[in-house]
Amino acid sequence: MMKLTHNIAVRDIEERYINIQPIQAAGRLTPDAMKALIAYGDGYSTCDQCRKPFRLDKITKPPIAEFHDDLAQFLNMDDARVTPGARRAFQAVCLSLAQKGDIILVSALGHYTEFLAAENAKALVREIPLTADNVVTGDAVARKIEEVTREHGAPPALVMLDHFDYSFANEHDIKGAAKAAHQHDIPILCNGAYTVGVMPVNGKALGVDFVVGSGHKSMASPAPSGVLATTSEYADLVFRTTQMVGDLTARKFGVKEVEMLGCTLMGANILAMMASFPTIQKRINDWDEYVAKSNYVVDALLSIRGNRCLSEYPRKHTLSKVDTTASFDAIARTHKRRGFFFSDELKNKGVVGIFAGATRTWKLNTYGLSWDRTKYVADAFKEIAAKYGLL
Amino acid sequence: MMKLTHNIAVRDIEERYINIQPIQAAGRLTPDAMKALIAYGDGYSTCDQCRKPFRLDKITKPPIAEFHDDLAQFLNMDDARVTPGARRAFQAVCLSLAQKGDIILVSALGHYTEFLAAENAKALVREIPLTADNVVTGDAVARKIEEVTREHGAPPALVMLDHFDYSFANEHDIKGAAKAAHQHDIPILCNGAYTVGVMPVNGKALGVDFVVGSGHKSMASPAPSGVLATTSEYADLVFRTTQMVGDLTARKFGVKEVEMLGCTLMGANILAMMASFPTIQKRINDWDEYVAKSNYVVDALLSIRGNRCLSEYPRKHTLSKVDTTASFDAIARTHKRRGFFFSDELKNKGVVGIFAGATRTWKLNTYGLSWDRTKYVADAFKEIAAKYGLL
Repeated sequence: MMKLTHNIAVRDIEERYINIQPIQAAGRLTPDAMKALIAYGDGYSTCDQCRKPFRLDKITKPPIAEFHDDLAQFLNMDDARVTPGARRAFQAVCLSLAQKGDIILVSALGHYTEFLAAENAKALVREIPLTADNVVTGDAVARKIEEVTREHGAPPALVMLDHFDYSFANEHDIKGAAKAAHQHDIPILCNGAYTVGVMPVNGKALGVDFVVGSGHKSMASPAPSGVLATTSEYADLVFRTTQMVGDLTARKFGVKEVEMLGCTLMGANILAMMASFPTIQKRINDWDEYVAKSNYVVDALLSIRGNRCLSEYPRKHTLSKVDTTASFDAIARTHKRRGFFFSDELKNKGVVGIFAGATRTWKLNTYGLSWDRTKYVADAFKEIAAKYGLL
Repeated sequence: MMKLTHNIAVRDIEERYINIQPIQAAGRLTPDAMKALIAYGDGYSTCDQCRKPFRLDKITKPPIAEFHDDLAQFLNMDDARVTPGARRAFQAVCLSLAQKGDIILVSALGHYTEFLAAENAKALVREIPLTADNVVTGDAVARKIEEVTREHGAPPALVMLDHFDYSFANEHDIKGAAKAAHQHDIPILCNGAYTVGVMPVNGKALGVDFVVGSGHKSMASPAPSGVLATTSEYADLVFRTTQMVGDLTARKFGVKEVEMLGCTLMGANILAMMASFPTIQKRINDWDEYVAKSNYVVDALLSIRGNRCLSEYPRKHTLSKVDTTASFDAIARTHKRRGFFFSDELKNKGVVGIFAGATRTWKLNTYGLSWDRTKYVADAFKEIAAKYGLL
């Protein structure tokens, strides 16, 4: 083990292996982001030229203000802020829109951070049911809104829906959901943690009130980082400035925003986001190619007897959930390394990132792979299958 | 201008200058933290070996779990979590302890993020008055508690008090305040943004229920990063785990903590905090020497005719607020560069970090300077004064 300090190992997974870990693939830094970390690593590095009104998103050197405008435009929304992760954006929206006891709708595939953000606002959560194909439709949203309104006596305060979910990475009908929500005057948040930064996301075209992205998940940025974009209709509420006045000192606190708690990502993280941004703007246009590569690898897995793709197929995303109970798990049952035989075999071939020991249902993410590596990974699965007589 | 990308300049202030900026001095990275940023910069870099129960502070490789134990012990508290900045710790405590309309006491020198955290929890804030020397005493806390209880009909939900404040960096009587708060059964939070990481802070000895520190302000860590430590009495409340259950799926979310929104600092930031930690543990023992250096520089400023130290004097901290209205500001009134003459002169001598243009009241922080540099900075002030006939 190469050591960084006395008790921390150097992390060299990305250097030594092909990494298909489900949540890591699109969060790998660009070389420019790495340079930004080095130059802006120090705590308050962004604050050298902070002038009135003393707020992160107003700083022009480095061009943080411009980046905020760019982010809003990138998502085709009116206003944007960076946040310490997508979850902190959910929190800001929930705390702004929900009162204690209000209902927030999420998908039956909603991410746990959406539940926690609602709970943090003392709101309740109801799940929107899925189709047999594990997809949320606009109709399902409409029906759940009506059901909740009837039972609860008031409409939900918010709909939070994943653009592509964390489990299957299936595409959900954000546009239909937005139409349904707006017919009942309910705002809707699009959780783009798996889309913002890898594929084009157009908030206005989707018709949503909020678009949330994750820097460390899909924008080639360090953790924690994220983005919350909204419309001019909701910006005044979610980005409301403080109304506090000191009772003794009569102090006021200018344009500091309550839900942002003032400034958000003051140092390395926002500069790394900014440094990766030109790459992000370009790479979303290569999405179809990455999806094709994803299908190439999934097809290789499906060529192995008994395997199934649990995600919608053909794939529309680079993250996929597969079922290898009838193949690799059958081997695991009698292998001396049990389920670890499979991750061992992959690692021996230089491929890491599937959950160690998992041989039944597991996830992989092929985002960012070149065609050479895509084929290599596909072949690796087939070679392991061949070795154990599964083809 | 050396460029990092097409529109971002390389930041080289720490390489080229002596930086006495008020909030940056103790947030400069250690070399080990810089190495950690490089090795762990990728988004979800900490998640390689995340196993059940799937929570950041339970990860053992890298030794994040151990670091959490070390942090609690370092502050002599029972339990600790990392947070995206001290402000997110204030938020977690306010949201846990305050109901809508509750009163939270802060100092008349309380930081704006304390006001915002209270506002975020829909609580109200009342300020504790200062002595003539700009210090909060235990008696003042007791009187304010009684006053608020009388007028509001209920005691405050929380006292938040800065160990040393952001304005003068005066020391406030946390121990006396804790005694007063506890006599009324009110929990108290010690805001150690300016102390945790630079001087010894012993939560149990101070008698507080919460100790909050800032990674990017005082722990040689990148932004955003911070720590929230508490006692076993309050850990169950502030670190309470989610009670959410999916109404359709019956999903539960294990040991994810509501106020932490699950995991907090998943990548570069926590690893950099960890890498800096051995240095932090050592450097707090050098605090007296840094305070001596602070006094050396302040004494040099006071040797200039008409200057005053607005902070308590002799200094007990490396951050100080001084008044040079009668000296440097007198020059600024007729200088063609106005107040900028002063920051110009300092910059020409290789010293930066005072607010550009300020010549009346301004702040400096000498933390981290060697004796050679301390003397150099002191001499720089005196040489500028001499040049303009102020000695």
